[in-house]
Amino acid sequence: MKERVVILGGGAAGPKIMAKLLRTTEYDCQIDMYTDEDMISYSACGMPFYIEGLIENYRRLIVRTPQQFEEKGANIHLSKRCIKIMPDEKKVMLEDVKTKEISYADYDKLAITTGARPYVPNIKNINLKNVFTLRKLEDAINIKDTMLQSKKAVIVGGGYIGIELLEAFVVNDLQVDLIERSSHILSIFDDDMSELIKTHIESTSPDKVKIITDDAVIALIGEDKVEKVVTQNGKIIDTDMVIIASGVVPNTEIAGEAGLELGVGNTIRVNHRMQTSVKDIYAAGDCIENYHLVSRSHVWIPLGSSANKEGRCAAINISGGYDTLPGILGSSVTRYIGFTMSLTGLTERDARNHGFDVITTVTTKQDKAGYMPESENITIKLVADRRTQKILGAQAVGAGDADKRINTVASAIMADETVDDFLHLDMTYAPPYSTAIDPLLSAAIVLNNKLKSND
Amino acid sequence: MKERVVILGGGAAGPKIMAKLLRTTEYDCQIDMYTDEDMISYSACGMPFYIEGLIENYRRLIVRTPQQFEEKGANIHLSKRCIKIMPDEKKVMLEDVKTKEISYADYDKLAITTGARPYVPNIKNINLKNVFTLRKLEDAINIKDTMLQSKKAVIVGGGYIGIELLEAFVVNDLQVDLIERSSHILSIFDDDMSELIKTHIESTSPDKVKIITDDAVIALIGEDKVEKVVTQNGKIIDTDMVIIASGVVPNTEIAGEAGLELGVGNTIRVNHRMQTSVKDIYAAGDCIENYHLVSRSHVWIPLGSSANKEGRCAAINISGGYDTLPGILGSSVTRYIGFTMSLTGLTERDARNHGFDVITTVTTKQDKAGYMPESENITIKLVADRRTQKILGAQAVGAGDADKRINTVASAIMADETVDDFLHLDMTYAPPYSTAIDPLLSAAIVLNNKLKSND
Repeated sequence: MKERVVILGGGAAGPKIMAKLLRTTEYDCQIDMYTDEDMISYSACGMPFYIEGLIENYRRLIVRTPQQFEEKGANIHLSKRCIKIMPDEKKVMLEDVKTKEISYADYDKLAITTGARPYVPNIKNINLKNVFTLRKLEDAINIKDTMLQSKKAVIVGGGYIGIELLEAFVVNDLQVDLIERSSHILSIFDDDMSELIKTHIESTSPDKVKIITDDAVIALIGEDKVEKVVTQNGKIIDTDMVIIASGVVPNTEIAGEAGLELGVGNTIRVNHRMQTSVKDIYAAGDCIENYHLVSRSHVWIPLGSSANKEGRCAAINISGGYDTLPGILGSSVTRYIGFTMSLTGLTERDARNHGFDVITTVTTKQDKAGYMPESENITIKLVADRRTQKILGAQAVGAGDADKRINTVASAIMADETVDDFLHLDMTYAPPYSTAIDPLLSAAIVLNNKLKSND
Repeated sequence: MKERVVILGGGAAGPKIMAKLLRTTEYDCQIDMYTDEDMISYSACGMPFYIEGLIENYRRLIVRTPQQFEEKGANIHLSKRCIKIMPDEKKVMLEDVKTKEISYADYDKLAITTGARPYVPNIKNINLKNVFTLRKLEDAINIKDTMLQSKKAVIVGGGYIGIELLEAFVVNDLQVDLIERSSHILSIFDDDMSELIKTHIESTSPDKVKIITDDAVIALIGEDKVEKVVTQNGKIIDTDMVIIASGVVPNTEIAGEAGLELGVGNTIRVNHRMQTSVKDIYAAGDCIENYHLVSRSHVWIPLGSSANKEGRCAAINISGGYDTLPGILGSSVTRYIGFTMSLTGLTERDARNHGFDVITTVTTKQDKAGYMPESENITIKLVADRRTQKILGAQAVGAGDADKRINTVASAIMADETVDDFLHLDMTYAPPYSTAIDPLLSAAIVLNNKLKSND
């Protein structure tokens, strides 16, 4: 008899599970996906670039349509929100988003891939027009339409989405105030690296961007549309639109109510096979907790790259196979107008918090032979543990080729390498690609010298 | 008392040793460098790009001048060729290149960094004008001057230098015939990858480039300057200039005559500390044998990246420190007009020759999110061992970002990772940089599926 697999959520992890199950010909199953949206499987990470205008049509962001899945035998139920999971009866309760009609679906295996939603801080008059969060594709379409008629914008939050939207708005000639509650934008980086990023952004677009840190928006002013933003420190800023990009919260209420064990920040706790604490219920994507390979602790770092790996792992296990995910390094990257910011592993701050005996180095080098016209600077920060001499993390920022180098360090961290191991790595070299001693290796050499001299 | 360090050769490794020794303040030494050239420390790898016109002045290729070293206390002796090493007396015999005068220098520690020279096959009338090899900076200057007055060129040899000069000539609007003795250009790649490269080159410049394989130049024709090239298969090709780029041979005759143990292809055999078989004589750079970490065999892969690492290692040991180089992976990269070709570890062919139970996969993917305008294809070939499931090598070619990904694999190979380890690597993702599942991981997933299904 066919097993019934129910997937809740149609973002990245859900469609990945579905696609993998459909390819697993030896597993005979009936797959039903329920989502509260009217679309599935689109690239949320691509939305800022659609808004910027790099992608003409938003349909290009759609990875797979419901039709494509249905042709292969799966059932996609749009605009159906799961409002209750009943593990004892192996059943879910669903509500039609439009008609509010209730229905039920039985499952043998359940996959929760409900993702996350924007966190919206307590701001007065937040329901004014032209105030947005960016999560769904329709948000992106609305933001773009509004941006094209706007001259000024305020972005609340200096994380990845805030910075990517800043690029989009600046390229489209808006004046932007970015307001960050903490003392640094992109605070997942160490403060010294955040400072470099801030300096770069301000110097690239001095008359278009104003970065305000240590302040928060407390109220919006306007009749129908937003017209002004009021901050805690008493600033009043004229604007045509506001973006709330203050982080995300996981969509895990129904999981918690059903008795699934939750973890960091109310995410769903899973084991290395993407199994939750309840039999036959799996979870993957932005709604689950991650295991960090360097700090060996539970964290929540929701990223599209992880969602895909988790989806694949969940599908293998759902279909009776055996697969495990060792954990994450939190590797990530973004850009601001030709400037790349990338990291993996632990920052200096995180490493200290986890009790490592931290030693670091920050080096700035050209990323290609200095005489090549395309040569640009990158600044690399390496973080290591003095006792074990292992590399704990790396951050790289600059106009040069920073992100792929971070992957090379990630590979070394994954393999538990010491700084001394790493500096002997045989990396490719030709003048259009790197320097004879790659900036990564230069950084490792400097750090190793520091380690050896017991600095 | 100061130790006397004599360095023979001023290419890449020699100056690296000198620079590192000069920075090692706790080692009190007198350093003398002898070179048969009238210049030291320039980027040989940059010469094709100078010829192409990307670098205006050849002086930009000079990393350090003799003056810069002499200001720090070292002695640079230009145009002095070492013609004999006398290990028993710890002395070298030198000949002035111009006056032929003989002199001697005593050493406590000797570093041989004499590099390699072009291999020139047996070709009739090779001494005609406008026939060049590319090794020294003056060669580059002469090639460029001649190229600017030429319409046609023949390149003999389809290795890295041949391909880089092909780009230089094509960009400068010459018609070029490239003649390769073996069945494939860039034969350090597997044949299937070489075919992709050839197809790319031919399709990019269909009316400017003709690649002729399985043929060799046997004679040149001309009065004073070369006018025609005659091949083994009977082709007669009109040309204004000829480049001989048929590989290199190590400059190790004096080392061999002095009784130093030689290795593969008459290179100088060194241990992991860059010590030769004779006490107090070290060697580094293009003239030494390498130890390959994957095949665990001796090889000769002379590369600028290795020369720098070897120079650093030699300097540490010369100055009484302790450093070892584990070995190389043969990582390398080049480009042809926007197309990158890169590899690390063993090719399929090499792996078979070394007795591995080889399994491979070749996948072509976009290197960035498909909807991003800058997205390009790359083709990745992974080579693994069926029994241990370890990754043995990787090759990547394409218009996309191929080279840095090869470094990420190199890091995994260095750490002895299996394919299954590697596919779990947490790599950075954002649409302008990669796909949610990086092409490298896609390739690893395909290979892993093949391994698991015992294909």
